[in-house]
Amino acid sequence: MTRGQMLYEGKAKRVYATQNPAEYIVEYKDDATAFNAQKRGSWAGKGATNNAITAHLYPQLEAAGIPTHFIAKLDDRQQRVKAVTIVPVEVIVRNTAAGSFSKRLGVEEGTPLSRPVVEYCYKSDALGDPLINTDTALALGWAEEKDLTRIRELALKVRDFLVPYFAQRGVNLIDFKLEFGKLADGTIVLADEISPDTCRFWDAQTGEKMDKDRFRRDLGGIEEAYAEMLRRVTAPV
Amino acid sequence: MTRGQMLYEGKAKRVYATQNPAEYIVEYKDDATAFNAQKRGSWAGKGATNNAITAHLYPQLEAAGIPTHFIAKLDDRQQRVKAVTIVPVEVIVRNTAAGSFSKRLGVEEGTPLSRPVVEYCYKSDALGDPLINTDTALALGWAEEKDLTRIRELALKVRDFLVPYFAQRGVNLIDFKLEFGKLADGTIVLADEISPDTCRFWDAQTGEKMDKDRFRRDLGGIEEAYAEMLRRVTAPV
Repeated sequence: MTRGQMLYEGKAKRVYATQNPAEYIVEYKDDATAFNAQKRGSWAGKGATNNAITAHLYPQLEAAGIPTHFIAKLDDRQQRVKAVTIVPVEVIVRNTAAGSFSKRLGVEEGTPLSRPVVEYCYKSDALGDPLINTDTALALGWAEEKDLTRIRELALKVRDFLVPYFAQRGVNLIDFKLEFGKLADGTIVLADEISPDTCRFWDAQTGEKMDKDRFRRDLGGIEEAYAEMLRRVTAPV
Repeated sequence: MTRGQMLYEGKAKRVYATQNPAEYIVEYKDDATAFNAQKRGSWAGKGATNNAITAHLYPQLEAAGIPTHFIAKLDDRQQRVKAVTIVPVEVIVRNTAAGSFSKRLGVEEGTPLSRPVVEYCYKSDALGDPLINTDTALALGWAEEKDLTRIRELALKVRDFLVPYFAQRGVNLIDFKLEFGKLADGTIVLADEISPDTCRFWDAQTGEKMDKDRFRRDLGGIEEAYAEMLRRVTAPV
């Protein structure tokens, strides 16, 4: 399995073609960005940690009936995935008010939501990933109705798996971001990563933040928090 | 019918109690605000024009099967309406990209939408009426699911009435904002106004703006545009 042409470079990952048109290689970088890339940083081990956490979770999500792009971990920073076309609609699932949601709506961080909130954003760095709704995605041709229905269904299924998974490991899953892709045959699969970059994890006992908010808010102890999350995700319960 | 206590003062209207607990009086002001009240203005006749346009349209919407709060026009600036509790979720229906939608999503003003887009905003001056979705409204207790379903159904029905109504009068209805209220018995009714303050009207021939964008964008000829809209709305076709 050798890497071909780089197809895409995002804030935290690169995607490469392979000799098999149905497979890509994803490489996790140590770079971190926040606030639509206005804040930038990097720390050793970040890419490896996020790769390891994602590679540990994705096969379990598959087993729980959620199709994903994941095939196998290749090495510390790389994984083999199925070739997909990313749906340009990011999905945020919220269990507890935090971050931009709290700010925008005047709801104190940490307020539990009486039901999960699924939000959609148009994946566009230039526009800062603006909040949209399904009507907008359909009217502007960013997704098809059947795919959005499936994406919502899968996002809530991911939540149903992850919330108890993390609770058993002493972590409160506050919110998380997902991306979905389309296989050549049209099947919608979970793509991207699930990691402290894309989730808010709060220690269930202390409330301590164990995710990218430590970088966004200059709280220190970033490497330790990511390492601790890897430990908790992979340790037997 | 005499006015009692003032119950609410908004940017463009005041609402008064009456001796009948099931009725309010709405008074239309000449004040205009834009950009979340950062820009303020006023012109003679604005209140009377918006009152007249709304009073002309609402009985026709009722006749088309859309329950409204409207009872009767009282005088130039005032109308009798049914007492409602306003649902704090504003509804924007878009036929063509314009305004904040165009800016936020990088879609050129005037781009037709392949299907109507219904957006919801949380009615809060302090927060600048932020965009929300139905999950958020439900999770934060701002509306009930059955009411949101009904509100969407009525909003699209209003669109189905207004688009041809204005087209017959040489006006392209670009987008419009609606508010809904709840009667004491729980019935959802259309409330608020339908006017150049709450709609984008473009002349079908020239594309000229005939609405509050003339004020927002300092285009001049505001009074004339509002007066022309009143003329077109009320003239026999």
